[in-house]
Amino acid sequence: MQLDTVLSALSDPVRRQIVGQLANASIDQACSAFQLPISKSTSTYHFRVLREAGLIKQRYSGTTILNTLRAADIEVRFPGLLRAVLQAARSETAVATSEVQ
Amino acid sequence: MQLDTVLSALSDPVRRQIVGQLANASIDQACSAFQLPISKSTSTYHFRVLREAGLIKQRYSGTTILNTLRAADIEVRFPGLLRAVLQAARSETAVATSEVQ
Repeated sequence: MQLDTVLSALSDPVRRQIVGQLANASIDQACSAFQLPISKSTSTYHFRVLREAGLIKQRYSGTTILNTLRAADIEVRFPGLLRAVLQAARSETAVATSEVQ
Repeated sequence: MQLDTVLSALSDPVRRQIVGQLANASIDQACSAFQLPISKSTSTYHFRVLREAGLIKQRYSGTTILNTLRAADIEVRFPGLLRAVLQAARSETAVATSEVQ
């Protein structure tokens, strides 16, 4: 797990949305469980970027791909990083929402 | 200051080196104060990326450009993020160094 690749993977809002949802999920999530504002092929690309950065694991269950956040591995490698990024993402979303209102 | 741009700016090791040196500096740093393994024009590019992401301020003192980290602004906007990234960078450098030895 390389910091360059991890930060680059997290620099995209769709990928942060995926990571955020996985961080809150108690079970593995199918790709179809994510309401992403993009096409299926673009979504597949984003999941691949996250997997190649080491942030998520993917496994087949029948024909469904299930996604898991590698939260513990990330925390060991880069303590506090994921929490800070997800908190920053939430605060940015909150600011954007309040500006729209 | 946008999270996308900030994370993208911090995803480069040279830019993290600049930010790390500024974080440890008690006074503004001239561009020439950084021992970067790159050409002057590439270095100018990296400083510009950091400035445009809102991470640093640049000002002229005579013909010298002085750089300051916007640490307080970053902390207000994205609490804990810069600290986590710089800590991750140090831990990655430490691992890389111990692997070389």
